[in-house]
Amino acid sequence: MNVPDKINLNEKFAEFDDRWSPKIVGDLDDYHIKLVKVEGDFVWHTHEQEDEMFVIIDGVLDMDFRDRRVTLGPGEFIVAPKGTEHKPHAEGVCNIMLLERQGVINTGDARTSDLTAGTGKRL
Amino acid sequence: MNVPDKINLNEKFAEFDDRWSPKIVGDLDDYHIKLVKVEGDFVWHTHEQEDEMFVIIDGVLDMDFRDRRVTLGPGEFIVAPKGTEHKPHAEGVCNIMLLERQGVINTGDARTSDLTAGTGKRL
Repeated sequence: MNVPDKINLNEKFAEFDDRWSPKIVGDLDDYHIKLVKVEGDFVWHTHEQEDEMFVIIDGVLDMDFRDRRVTLGPGEFIVAPKGTEHKPHAEGVCNIMLLERQGVINTGDARTSDLTAGTGKRL
Repeated sequence: MNVPDKINLNEKFAEFDDRWSPKIVGDLDDYHIKLVKVEGDFVWHTHEQEDEMFVIIDGVLDMDFRDRRVTLGPGEFIVAPKGTEHKPHAEGVCNIMLLERQGVINTGDARTSDLTAGTGKRL
C-alpha cells in the first residue's frame, strides 16, 4: 500500500520563505497540490488550458481580474478559470494552497517575467 | 468573462447540516470541489480510478486504512490514493473540503451502502 502521509499546512509553510515560488506538497491524480507565499504584485497572466484554484490559508489576497478585484481571506477560495487574465496581489505576506494540473507554469503565458518560477519544486 | 465568485467555506458549511452527503461548491477543470459534514462511521470502500483529497476545515477526522489510522485536524489534508481501501470516521462533527474528479461516488465500490449519496449535489 502506498498511502502518502498527511500534510500539515502550517508546518509546511514554516519550511520555506521565498515568495512567488510554488512548492509541490502532494499529488491528486495528475494534479499538483502546491503551497506558495506571495507578497506584493504579480504579473498579469493567463493559463489557456487550465483552471487554477487558490485557497487562502493565512493573510489576505487580492485577485485582480480585468473587470474587478476579488479580496480573499483565510478559509476562502477562488478558481481562476482557464483563458482568463488574472493578477494576484497581496499587501502583506499571504499563504496560499494551489491546486492545478501538473506542468502549469506560475506565470502562464507571461513566461519571460522575472517572477517565472516554472512548474514548482517538490518541498 | 466568466469568473465564479469566491467561496467562503464557513458560510457554505452553515448552509447545510446533513452528514455524509457531499455538496458541490466549485469546479476545477473536470474536478469537483465539494464540502461534506461527517460524523460517526463510514463504510470501507475504494475508488478504483480516482485519488481523493480530504482537507480538514473543522473538527477531527480519523482516516482508517487497512494497516493504520491517520488522525487529521484543521489545516491538514491527506490524499486517499486510487485503489486503496479507506474508511473515514469522526467522533464529533467534522467539516471537510473534498477534491475529486467529477462523477466520483462517495462510497466508491460499496455502492449498496445506506450511506451512498451519489456524486454530490450542487449547493
